[in-house]
Amino acid sequence: MSTKTYARSDLECVEWLRGRGRSALRRMVERVSRPGVLSLAGGLPAPELFPARKYGEAIQKVLASDPRALQYGASYEPLRIKLAGLLAERGVACEPGDILLTHGAQQAIGIAAGLLLAPGATVVFEEAVYTGALEAVAPYSPRILTVGTDPETGFDVDALEARLASGERPAFVYLIPEAHNPVGATLSEEKRERLADLAERYGVALIEDDAYGLLVYDGAAGRPLKSLVPDRVLFVGSFSKVIAPALRLGYLVVPPALRQAAQLLKESIDLECSALTQRALAALLDDGFLPGHLARLRETYRARRDAMLEAVEAEFPAGTRFSRPRGGFFVWAVLPGDVDTSALLDRALEEEGVAFVPGSAFSADGRGSRRALRLSFASQPPEAIREGVRRLGRMLRVPAR
Amino acid sequence: MSTKTYARSDLECVEWLRGRGRSALRRMVERVSRPGVLSLAGGLPAPELFPARKYGEAIQKVLASDPRALQYGASYEPLRIKLAGLLAERGVACEPGDILLTHGAQQAIGIAAGLLLAPGATVVFEEAVYTGALEAVAPYSPRILTVGTDPETGFDVDALEARLASGERPAFVYLIPEAHNPVGATLSEEKRERLADLAERYGVALIEDDAYGLLVYDGAAGRPLKSLVPDRVLFVGSFSKVIAPALRLGYLVVPPALRQAAQLLKESIDLECSALTQRALAALLDDGFLPGHLARLRETYRARRDAMLEAVEAEFPAGTRFSRPRGGFFVWAVLPGDVDTSALLDRALEEEGVAFVPGSAFSADGRGSRRALRLSFASQPPEAIREGVRRLGRMLRVPAR
Repeated sequence: MSTKTYARSDLECVEWLRGRGRSALRRMVERVSRPGVLSLAGGLPAPELFPARKYGEAIQKVLASDPRALQYGASYEPLRIKLAGLLAERGVACEPGDILLTHGAQQAIGIAAGLLLAPGATVVFEEAVYTGALEAVAPYSPRILTVGTDPETGFDVDALEARLASGERPAFVYLIPEAHNPVGATLSEEKRERLADLAERYGVALIEDDAYGLLVYDGAAGRPLKSLVPDRVLFVGSFSKVIAPALRLGYLVVPPALRQAAQLLKESIDLECSALTQRALAALLDDGFLPGHLARLRETYRARRDAMLEAVEAEFPAGTRFSRPRGGFFVWAVLPGDVDTSALLDRALEEEGVAFVPGSAFSADGRGSRRALRLSFASQPPEAIREGVRRLGRMLRVPAR
Repeated sequence: MSTKTYARSDLECVEWLRGRGRSALRRMVERVSRPGVLSLAGGLPAPELFPARKYGEAIQKVLASDPRALQYGASYEPLRIKLAGLLAERGVACEPGDILLTHGAQQAIGIAAGLLLAPGATVVFEEAVYTGALEAVAPYSPRILTVGTDPETGFDVDALEARLASGERPAFVYLIPEAHNPVGATLSEEKRERLADLAERYGVALIEDDAYGLLVYDGAAGRPLKSLVPDRVLFVGSFSKVIAPALRLGYLVVPPALRQAAQLLKESIDLECSALTQRALAALLDDGFLPGHLARLRETYRARRDAMLEAVEAEFPAGTRFSRPRGGFFVWAVLPGDVDTSALLDRALEEEGVAFVPGSAFSADGRGSRRALRLSFASQPPEAIREGVRRLGRMLRVPAR
């Protein structure tokens, strides 16, 4: 028996987590969640649109009729069949077996990354990126290449092509072709075709995040990359925005070659999603509920978006560039002149009681998009949106004290 | 623009997942889940004990009264306060802030591993191990050291001490001190104290899996390692066995030094657990429901365990060693002579229509515990348990045809 003793010390976590703080976006959203602040910051869906009663009824029905509702069990096939039908309407042809149900889009992105990304390998993100995707890859300490994001046209395909032509072979490219978060852009058909061509030509995987693909307010959504090059695309979706976040149900559609690995990875992480939630959602969708519900969501969010765009047009300084999103939750505004929206946020909170998210919160290195800000129109009614933008415009016209 | 083209090929997943099959346990459980088979194989809790009506009522109450029930939100503090109280009864002193809510015990083990385990580092498991723990560490391709597991006394503390004394410094030791899965053993007070002492002396982290700690049928559960060396122990628990698996709610209690890292890791994986499920569970627990429910569970499972032990004693061949679990779901039997229970399973299914899990399914390399088998008494009534064991005993007395 060894008699050597060791100095006592706290347990230490693995290196990538050491000294790591919460993401800039989360800190920001917490900082601005104060009583009395009119928040255009968070990306929360409007709670008054959650189908609480219908969902509660679906749960009761399932609990009363399905003895497997509370048990462990394989992924509920009727839900995946239903979902494959919904995806077909979106232009994505897949079999139920290609669909992995996940705890939200966040887990779908994480599993996609886990399938493709070896520690230290290279990934491509946009300069303005959904921060959850950055967090999902952080455990792999990847090398991150960025390409630009235009507030109107979105992903800079030329920049990606140059990277690939110069020999870069990223494990994947992460992108949001439809109703981008945070930028609000939707990719043109031409850009989508070029991206599909690049993915095919260079054998590159794309993670296509479609979190807002069912929330398009003008015309139809564009063709998913998943429909153009299905074998190259891992397609991410979620019921958080179209039903409610507390379902914690999202999905990852994988090429058939990755089916088994995706299932194994999910099981190793948390076995499965809730049998009850899967069955309740299936019951809700069976009920023919979704089309009318989506129409209500689109109508409400369209009115809020229109209110925000009109207000930004009227109230923000001349020379402001801003996106005119055809879907999703966000308007991205790039201010003229040499401003730093992080500093402006302090003024907005103190002088005007209004919150937004500074562009730098969406930057991989925390330094990009300093002149930009993200405004959410999802969780406030039009009157409050107009009031909030009016106050921001007033502040932007007056120099800092 | 590059004109070079690349050969088309399927996307390939990362190395550790390539060619990897489902775990031996999962394959086994699927293989034996046939209609007409009397299964003593799976580890499913008894569905007739799920509080479906009460849980449904709790959901309705929350949906009707709490506007945040379907929204994104921070981990629900009233549930963590309630849980800290439950853990205190179990001898674990912790603050609500030390508790991370997870998607089942599986995710709690995975997050514990993610906090502590760098790729390729060393971990210690028992020779007979809950396979979910092996799956949770697989992404890190660890070096696995094993120590023995005795069906009566459990974890071989001498073997661990020898490993540590010889200079091994594992990222953690995973163990189930109370009502072990698959072996059924509970550690003596002396073994617990020695493990705590080793953890302290060598600065080693312990992952203490307490999935069955509330299901002890004779007297009180032992003192958790977490109560002996709180700063060295990550404590894993779950509501899957005491309420229902479909809640997908488990928990990880971490030392304060790991609080922030644990929270960050959970957010990077899937943001959070369901606000609705957290609130419904809190409402159920507030209702004073748990003590009576636990008493019912213990009474039912105790009777099933007793039926199984009596039957094994009466029906299995002389020379069989088997555990007499004071809690949990499983009896572990080690057969006399040179047998391979994997081969016996085929006979059991074909000749007797009875299923069990061969011991090798719980072995890190698939080769250990060949003479052992795991029998679950959780999901069958006493009469079926007696019948199943009787048939197995009959088969074991007759040589293979």
